[in-house]
Amino acid sequence: MKMWDGRFSKQSDKLMEQFHNSLPFDKKMIEEDIDGSIAWAHALSKAGVFSEKELSLVVKGLEEILDDYNNGKISFLPGDEDIHMAVERILIERIGETGARLHTGRSRNDQVATDIRLYVKKSLGRINFLVVNLQKVLVERAKRDLDIIIPGFTHLQQAQPILLAHYWLSLFFLLEREKKRINNAVTNTDIMPLGAGAIAGSGFNVDRTAIARELGFGSVSQNSIDAVGSRDFILETLSVITSIGIHISRYAEDLIIWSSREFGFIELDDAWSTGSSMMPQKKNPDSVELIRGKSGRFLGNYTRFATVLKGVGLTYYKDLQEDKEPVFDSIEQICLVLDVFSRVIETLAVKTENIQKDLDPFLLATDLADYLVRKGMPFRMSHKVIGKIVAYCIEFSRQLDTMGLDEFRKFSDLFENDVLELFSWRGAVDRRNIEGGTSKESVLNQIKLAHELVK
Amino acid sequence: MKMWDGRFSKQSDKLMEQFHNSLPFDKKMIEEDIDGSIAWAHALSKAGVFSEKELSLVVKGLEEILDDYNNGKISFLPGDEDIHMAVERILIERIGETGARLHTGRSRNDQVATDIRLYVKKSLGRINFLVVNLQKVLVERAKRDLDIIIPGFTHLQQAQPILLAHYWLSLFFLLEREKKRINNAVTNTDIMPLGAGAIAGSGFNVDRTAIARELGFGSVSQNSIDAVGSRDFILETLSVITSIGIHISRYAEDLIIWSSREFGFIELDDAWSTGSSMMPQKKNPDSVELIRGKSGRFLGNYTRFATVLKGVGLTYYKDLQEDKEPVFDSIEQICLVLDVFSRVIETLAVKTENIQKDLDPFLLATDLADYLVRKGMPFRMSHKVIGKIVAYCIEFSRQLDTMGLDEFRKFSDLFENDVLELFSWRGAVDRRNIEGGTSKESVLNQIKLAHELVK
Amino acid sequence: MKMWDGRFSKQSDKLMEQFHNSLPFDKKMIEEDIDGSIAWAHALSKAGVFSEKELSLVVKGLEEILDDYNNGKISFLPGDEDIHMAVERILIERIGETGARLHTGRSRNDQVATDIRLYVKKSLGRINFLVVNLQKVLVERAKRDLDIIIPGFTHLQQAQPILLAHYWLSLFFLLEREKKRINNAVTNTDIMPLGAGAIAGSGFNVDRTAIARELGFGSVSQNSIDAVGSRDFILETLSVITSIGIHISRYAEDLIIWSSREFGFIELDDAWSTGSSMMPQKKNPDSVELIRGKSGRFLGNYTRFATVLKGVGLTYYKDLQEDKEPVFDSIEQICLVLDVFSRVIETLAVKTENIQKDLDPFLLATDLADYLVRKGMPFRMSHKVIGKIVAYCIEFSRQLDTMGLDEFRKFSDLFENDVLELFSWRGAVDRRNIEGGTSKESVLNQIKLAHELVK
Amino acid sequence: MKMWDGRFSKQSDKLMEQFHNSLPFDKKMIEEDIDGSIAWAHALSKAGVFSEKELSLVVKGLEEILDDYNNGKISFLPGDEDIHMAVERILIERIGETGARLHTGRSRNDQVATDIRLYVKKSLGRINFLVVNLQKVLVERAKRDLDIIIPGFTHLQQAQPILLAHYWLSLFFLLEREKKRINNAVTNTDIMPLGAGAIAGSGFNVDRTAIARELGFGSVSQNSIDAVGSRDFILETLSVITSIGIHISRYAEDLIIWSSREFGFIELDDAWSTGSSMMPQKKNPDSVELIRGKSGRFLGNYTRFATVLKGVGLTYYKDLQEDKEPVFDSIEQICLVLDVFSRVIETLAVKTENIQKDLDPFLLATDLADYLVRKGMPFRMSHKVIGKIVAYCIEFSRQLDTMGLDEFRKFSDLFENDVLELFSWRGAVDRRNIEGGTSKESVLNQIKLAHELVK
Repeated sequence: MKMWDGRFSKQSDKLMEQFHNSLPFDKKMIEEDIDGSIAWAHALSKAGVFSEKELSLVVKGLEEILDDYNNGKISFLPGDEDIHMAVERILIERIGETGARLHTGRSRNDQVATDIRLYVKKSLGRINFLVVNLQKVLVERAKRDLDIIIPGFTHLQQAQPILLAHYWLSLFFLLEREKKRINNAVTNTDIMPLGAGAIAGSGFNVDRTAIARELGFGSVSQNSIDAVGSRDFILETLSVITSIGIHISRYAEDLIIWSSREFGFIELDDAWSTGSSMMPQKKNPDSVELIRGKSGRFLGNYTRFATVLKGVGLTYYKDLQEDKEPVFDSIEQICLVLDVFSRVIETLAVKTENIQKDLDPFLLATDLADYLVRKGMPFRMSHKVIGKIVAYCIEFSRQLDTMGLDEFRKFSDLFENDVLELFSWRGAVDRRNIEGGTSKESVLNQIKLAHELVK
Repeated sequence: MKMWDGRFSKQSDKLMEQFHNSLPFDKKMIEEDIDGSIAWAHALSKAGVFSEKELSLVVKGLEEILDDYNNGKISFLPGDEDIHMAVERILIERIGETGARLHTGRSRNDQVATDIRLYVKKSLGRINFLVVNLQKVLVERAKRDLDIIIPGFTHLQQAQPILLAHYWLSLFFLLEREKKRINNAVTNTDIMPLGAGAIAGSGFNVDRTAIARELGFGSVSQNSIDAVGSRDFILETLSVITSIGIHISRYAEDLIIWSSREFGFIELDDAWSTGSSMMPQKKNPDSVELIRGKSGRFLGNYTRFATVLKGVGLTYYKDLQEDKEPVFDSIEQICLVLDVFSRVIETLAVKTENIQKDLDPFLLATDLADYLVRKGMPFRMSHKVIGKIVAYCIEFSRQLDTMGLDEFRKFSDLFENDVLELFSWRGAVDRRNIEGGTSKESVLNQIKLAHELVK
Repeated sequence: MKMWDGRFSKQSDKLMEQFHNSLPFDKKMIEEDIDGSIAWAHALSKAGVFSEKELSLVVKGLEEILDDYNNGKISFLPGDEDIHMAVERILIERIGETGARLHTGRSRNDQVATDIRLYVKKSLGRINFLVVNLQKVLVERAKRDLDIIIPGFTHLQQAQPILLAHYWLSLFFLLEREKKRINNAVTNTDIMPLGAGAIAGSGFNVDRTAIARELGFGSVSQNSIDAVGSRDFILETLSVITSIGIHISRYAEDLIIWSSREFGFIELDDAWSTGSSMMPQKKNPDSVELIRGKSGRFLGNYTRFATVLKGVGLTYYKDLQEDKEPVFDSIEQICLVLDVFSRVIETLAVKTENIQKDLDPFLLATDLADYLVRKGMPFRMSHKVIGKIVAYCIEFSRQLDTMGLDEFRKFSDLFENDVLELFSWRGAVDRRNIEGGTSKESVLNQIKLAHELVK
Repeated sequence: MKMWDGRFSKQSDKLMEQFHNSLPFDKKMIEEDIDGSIAWAHALSKAGVFSEKELSLVVKGLEEILDDYNNGKISFLPGDEDIHMAVERILIERIGETGARLHTGRSRNDQVATDIRLYVKKSLGRINFLVVNLQKVLVERAKRDLDIIIPGFTHLQQAQPILLAHYWLSLFFLLEREKKRINNAVTNTDIMPLGAGAIAGSGFNVDRTAIARELGFGSVSQNSIDAVGSRDFILETLSVITSIGIHISRYAEDLIIWSSREFGFIELDDAWSTGSSMMPQKKNPDSVELIRGKSGRFLGNYTRFATVLKGVGLTYYKDLQEDKEPVFDSIEQICLVLDVFSRVIETLAVKTENIQKDLDPFLLATDLADYLVRKGMPFRMSHKVIGKIVAYCIEFSRQLDTMGLDEFRKFSDLFENDVLELFSWRGAVDRRNIEGGTSKESVLNQIKLAHELVK
């Protein structure tokens, strides 16, 4: 027996019930559904549909259903096609005719839009919290690793020496922008649809502003078709999560490479590594590999839902039921990723000695080129001169930092004694003393700014 | 206590256990895992690792675990990180040291590759079965609707009259190609990895051909790195499912449009429709809407896993654990889609009277143009002449099929009395009596061919 | 001869030159590149690298290159691997050694990041302009169609009567949120990277704030690794464009369906339709079909670039060169889509008579249910009662709006004479007189608000 | 003036012409278009539409257009909306009325379907050729590197020693399956649509089998709706290319990592590397980075077109015009990727000495565990024992291969003198002497098989 089958002469096929049943996943929103129904009941009461007494019967009934659900005392039936119908059925069974008035002036269309907006908004808050937490870990890590100089890489080739702290902070500042995206998604989610009815607006002129206030929404929707037909806030949420997931995958990649014996820059804590079923020596950075891999899931969920929306006319079509699984999955998993990644970074060991050994004098080639510039040579020429020196070093197995002045002068007369002073990692780092650069002073400024941003 | 933690000095973090635990989804492969282990035990026995008695102890132990699992008698532990480790743990608990020999010469890498190949191969078989079933429904439907003429659409504008049977058969022939894709995926899946070990090949020279025979594999892998590191067969399976899902979404779209009051060509059976929580008159073709929407899921799962694979070096990385959820989901859902779609098509009512009324005489404009061609006018000119006639009809609210010869001759002297014979739907259909065309003869030939193809 | 090949002993392979050459597409940014270089020259001048005279030589040289390019007077060479190297080469050829100083303290890494940010920011401005333009068209359309009542659809089944104006406005309000997304993307793009060098910060302490001011950037990047390595603003831009494209595809779908002979609600202007090469009668709504189809392109470009970014470590890898083609394509095409869609909506004809004829009395079923509620029946029961009446109408070919009171009273005693007053489309529309509802008053309020929002 | 505008009273808008014009990209198919038209002319001639003389006029006219195009002598006009209309227009201008008969019984729908199938089929042949070429390079490389032992990696952690040849061959065998996919796509493309007309079949009963023979098609389509409405072969082609691109990205990733100074396993030839505009010492493996990055493009094109197809009803809609750009792009780029990757592998230098130094004795831990198994210990215990030894080595900075028997016996009495013989890389490799394993014998067998497969 369905609540909508008055005009039907035949029951749903069992397979159909299984096919379109959304209860297995939308029951996740039971709290939001009941909050929404309570607010609706209040509004109906003000509109004269419920007496005070009926209202409290309904509210109490709904609250008890939630309690019972949380205590595992609710049994759903095969015919409960979604959480909305299930809650209404149980309510009517428990409180009778009064319960059968609750859906007055409301449609599942505005009801589900309200539930999912409440759920997404709350989840975005949790994601934001975990992003800030990761940022705090990064700042702490930056402070801890402040004096460690690592080779900065481009193309996975040693490029220029940088502070490890500078590296951690790069993610911090990227996350600042992710937070802006989260916040924008919140703004676009924080709009209450209740009162939009199925498509045209409710036939009962309830006080929508009061409902929004009760449910904590920032505003009410201005057009009922848009209110029940749009899922843009879900697409935006999925895109924000994808952005975070994809960008973290890039840092995960670095940590995987740095964990290799050949790089040996870091070692993940045992608590975040696993072993092999066959090879007894293995210690694998599984946590960050999985973090890298999860990025596919986020992009997949985005693509999935964008494809669902594509070309689906207005207003509501059943296709839109496919909105929940991807967004629930992405929310749950990004929270895990953020949490695990924070713990991994917090606990990993930096192997300073290995890093120190790995620094290649060629890292200072740009400093040498800049040196010639400062002596008056145009950069494009000095770049070429240093290139020749590098080629010479490779051919004759020489090291840049052990070459003598005479050797340098074979390539340019502009070299003078002070060239030998260039060969200091610390000096090279501190020469990038520009806003945003890797010098210690700049990095300390970044840390200060970071503290303010997450304070 | 992990089976691989000999070298570890610290336990996994609880969050880590939750994060990388695949048991909640990979337990779906318990049967394949146990089949694989039994075959492996046989191989080890032949290689001298197990005595006959030990072998039967192991085999019996494994079979009992499967039975117990199927009877809900297995309890997994929080530390069971995947189905492989869970089964091995339980086996060792039950039969002791002999069980601890089962993983000799094997790695989870070749074990999981075997399990998932068995699972995917079996599932492709089921998908193929359901595709053939849908084809059979289409042929039956074509036979039933053989004499119904509908307007054929391009751009959702009436184009030329066609047989409804011809429409149903278009999907039949598309599915022929989908079956080729399924079959190719089977071929690429049907390769046994066991014996590849972790990466380099097992150190125990077991008889791989015998294992493959026992497990029903068509061949054995020729390179152990490829065997454990490649997931191309999963990507291919996901692409085949996406192809089917996307193409069915196109037919679902047509059925949704045809179910509208405005078209009124068909009506879905009550068993495959649903109503509205608010609007008592509504009967919605939810089943086909959901089928259309599910296509996003298939594409999402494909994109998801392709992204997971992208840029992940050899051989095995934990990222690859993200292969199972998308392929399990796509398999399960495409089976539902195929099954439901078959039932929907089987049971829908064609509203012949509405269709008949909807046929627009303009559908015969091409026949008119062809008529002039047969009278000697080049097609490009005749197209223009008929275009002018159409414009004339629109301007003066005339109908093509009620125009007189005089009226036609205002546009060309080539029109003769026989032009009036053109205006028969049946005649127009039968004029397309070319292989693959919509004439009844051609459609009967298609039905005959179709019967042979699915016989 | 490459500008970077000092250390190389061998030329690039011709195929390699073709493979990694980005000039064919990145020349689109020549204006941004030259603006950036002029700003950089100013900064270098302040830092003492250029004298006043040299500075004006460089600036004039760069400006002339841009002029010449715009006049088709620039010839690129096969060795010009990107627009940056091409401009620098030409500059050096023209002004000699002074030109060879321009790249002092700069890397292509911060240079290209600057160029693309300038380009994207400007493009987002153009997209915003076109969105606002579409909104204006929608408001005008809403005013023009204010008194037209259409059946509102859910599941492509007639649901409740709505104003056509209300429909157009639903897109207006959705676009309000798209503008928020555009604006957020601008904020995240509007950060100047110059001075970040290759990875570590420039070795020349230029005044970054002054450069940013000159180039119109809102702020300067705070971390050089983030500045050169992040492309999140491109991903965000692609997601914003996808959101717009996908949502417009939904409205395009409706217009395609409404253009069918069977619906006949609208007719696209001839200027935005095309014909058939074979069928003389055809007039196809190609413009909106193509708009619907383009949504795939936007999603594809997003997926493409997200996949490129996935798992690519820091800082810069050549993979990132794959950022430009997708974002250029999406920008160009969304501008076309927005422009064409505005023109299509502006010029389409609404076929009021057809619409009027199509309104089905069942559209008022919810009003009937609400009627019983107002008479005291709980909604869930009244829904069932009206469902029975609908079934009765279908079975006995009765129309809701021609039933008599006696007939109604067979289903409930609550029906009274006033039930017959319900059957007015205008009345049904105006009963949804709630904020965001479809009543004329509400729609006029929406129009007023809309005017303020785009004024 | 359009060829289809007889019924139109107004010209297309200029913006509309720009928007739906496909000539800029579909002119790539001019050869296929002309071949198809010549075959069609032959068929029309047999059907009596053309006399012998007219036929040769048409054929000669078409051939001259192709020649002129190839010699840059064709000027397209703004009104030429696609290659089909452009060729027909020019033909009519050149040969008059006879040319105006060419489109008799044909529609652009079957014409374009034919052109694109011819184009895709030819391109799949080229891709197959390049895959085989890459396979040949891999076999040659395997033969050249036959005696080089490298650490095999899982999780980028040293796992077990393998032959470098074994690594190269893993890609060889993966490509065997890609060839099966290419071949299946060819089969599904190799079906001739001509004669299907716009949707219903041509009204002129031409000899379709003869046309197919002339154009080299393997079969003719069996259903005209399927023939003109289906683009599944394009989706399949895009999926095959994605598969190849994604899998090659995995090997590219390895080569990028192996090119790092820290790994130092290989060095790309100068011809396939590039330098930095700022850092004179840089030599970047740009070619393989770009190959890795291109994988996003392939997946993007797939997603793009799948989304285009999704939910687009039958038969032809303008949305389908969006099929060409993605497939042209993917074809062109995968050919580049395959070609470049072959050349990169062919020319890269293996740095044997670095690799040798990098081999870590822990690589033999599995051999040690297997040793204990052979002495009678169950594998699960021996794994644990060796794990303890590894932990001991780490704690006390001991190396597995320099431990004495006494030291080993602290962990198990089963160790005997022969344990010391285990420590040979060559021995470890050759112990994996199982089909598909890394032993020299197995690898030589693989090479032999590979030779047969690509001979």
